[in-house]
Amino acid sequence: MAAASSPSGLRRSIVLKRRPKGEPNADDFEVREDPIPAPAAGEVVTRTIWLSIDPYMRGRLREEQTYAVAIQIGEVMTGETVGEVIASADPAFSAGDIVVGSRGWQTHSVTPGDRLTRISKGAAPLSAYLGVLGMPGATAYAGVTEICKPKAGETFVVSAASGAVGSVAGQVAKRAGARVIGIAGGSEKCLWVQDSLGFDDCVDHRSMDLRRELLAACPNGIDGYFENVGGAVQTAVFDQLNPFARVAMCGMVSQYNQTVMPPGPNLGFVVGKRVLIQGFIVSDRPARLTEWRAMAEPLVADGSLVYREDVIDGLENAPDALAGILGGRNFGKLLVRVSHEGD
Amino acid sequence: MAAASSPSGLRRSIVLKRRPKGEPNADDFEVREDPIPAPAAGEVVTRTIWLSIDPYMRGRLREEQTYAVAIQIGEVMTGETVGEVIASADPAFSAGDIVVGSRGWQTHSVTPGDRLTRISKGAAPLSAYLGVLGMPGATAYAGVTEICKPKAGETFVVSAASGAVGSVAGQVAKRAGARVIGIAGGSEKCLWVQDSLGFDDCVDHRSMDLRRELLAACPNGIDGYFENVGGAVQTAVFDQLNPFARVAMCGMVSQYNQTVMPPGPNLGFVVGKRVLIQGFIVSDRPARLTEWRAMAEPLVADGSLVYREDVIDGLENAPDALAGILGGRNFGKLLVRVSHEGD
Repeated sequence: MAAASSPSGLRRSIVLKRRPKGEPNADDFEVREDPIPAPAAGEVVTRTIWLSIDPYMRGRLREEQTYAVAIQIGEVMTGETVGEVIASADPAFSAGDIVVGSRGWQTHSVTPGDRLTRISKGAAPLSAYLGVLGMPGATAYAGVTEICKPKAGETFVVSAASGAVGSVAGQVAKRAGARVIGIAGGSEKCLWVQDSLGFDDCVDHRSMDLRRELLAACPNGIDGYFENVGGAVQTAVFDQLNPFARVAMCGMVSQYNQTVMPPGPNLGFVVGKRVLIQGFIVSDRPARLTEWRAMAEPLVADGSLVYREDVIDGLENAPDALAGILGGRNFGKLLVRVSHEGD
Repeated sequence: MAAASSPSGLRRSIVLKRRPKGEPNADDFEVREDPIPAPAAGEVVTRTIWLSIDPYMRGRLREEQTYAVAIQIGEVMTGETVGEVIASADPAFSAGDIVVGSRGWQTHSVTPGDRLTRISKGAAPLSAYLGVLGMPGATAYAGVTEICKPKAGETFVVSAASGAVGSVAGQVAKRAGARVIGIAGGSEKCLWVQDSLGFDDCVDHRSMDLRRELLAACPNGIDGYFENVGGAVQTAVFDQLNPFARVAMCGMVSQYNQTVMPPGPNLGFVVGKRVLIQGFIVSDRPARLTEWRAMAEPLVADGSLVYREDVIDGLENAPDALAGILGGRNFGKLLVRVSHEGD
């Protein structure tokens, strides 16, 4: 059994101070300090290296519950992390192990070992386990393969195409033989989606006439759509769906800061075109993460699965990072570097 | 080979005169008379006995195509019929055979035999082959079993519950063990849905507070919804869907007469609740009609599958009948008796 040494020093955590109205900002949170806890039997203490920032976190700040329990005032914000074990009272872990878990916005965590997954060092950069090899990658994989099911020659569209989920979704659909069109915000992102991810085209959702540009990029209509944004992008895509199109509803980030939800599309087309629209959350399918990680690790290692990271240093910048991702100001998988790997 | 006698007399057909604006009326159509045609080789001449009137017909009158080709000005209106063979040049049919087909709004038709299905006399009333044993019944069966998939103890809701499709959908869900709640227009229909169809409850969509009445009828939320109407009913049901609910999108009759489509529901809930919404059309699944008819014939014969018909006499009243079904003024499966069975 690993020794359960008592780590010393202070832990910093970011807790919810008040529920944000509209875009969250740093004043909605506060930093709390307490001594780094010692592990009880079966527990593990980790030092956080990477913290993932994801759009779904905005839903946790709302009073009403969505699919997960709302964060309460004074609670530590949730979030996926990669950390290093610094003390363990669980025989399955030793100091120095690298683990992935959902340990929240804090510099250190104490947690039952069975909530952590050890990752092998060297297979891929550690940060990748929060993006392309983590929950966002598995989300893309599950939504594309279980709902959109793109076939060779079909047209597949993904919004937020340069993001952590969208970039993988398009690459998975491309491997299935589909013609893949991204939608992203701004020419820099669109260029990267085409040139680096290898999508067949990418439409800028800020363009003057999104509908017409999408039509030009999808002359044969749209057979599969991976929805990350909602709003005007959703309207434009839905209008161009083909009969028997499949829509994977992963997120609608354009409205996460809104207090009153705008109306949606009239659903008459769903009947006539026999469209399938399905919401999903990858945590309902834990086996898919394991499966995806095993499949994707070698593709990341040989460079055939492309990803991009947007790194912000310092835990105290996590609130701004969250505001940024909700506004589409990140470019690639958004991460907070809480400490350095070799510290 | 059956003799190909030449029938004599006139055929009356109802053709589209102009595209209706809003609710269709008799002035949008006109009656055309021509001699009853003689059958060419492989063709069959039938005398129409029953003509089915269904909400989908409104879509055929629009300029733009939905899932089927629009009726052109001067063309005979489409519609499912039961008829008697009066002359046949197809060896598979003989005079006196009863056949089901899609022969349109006319007193007689000439058609290739391979477009007709012979039905056995005596298994059920002939009109039933246009309703409970026909396309509407098979539609209900396919939507419930392939999309809603109600499980024992779940709550299943169906709108237009006293109609040809809704009444069967609820009975199929009831047989699967679900708690079944109908939505219908007016207390007379609601009483029939509860007392004769045996649904657990029925909510009047004309009530002052549909949302609250639905909530009272569905205290455990809604797991499956069979959508026939759209509009305010759709909004009320969608707001009360449970996680992992399944919605079969069969029709949205409340908007078929509208020229500008109203906005629909914000689809954020689809993500958080992992809802599945799927449109379908039974003609994509021809095998389901055969399967359903074989299953349901004995249930109709022994009275355990309940249905109700609303009969209007005379082909010339078909346009008014169509207007009536779009306004919910029918009560049960709407049929036009074009001629009598024994004529």
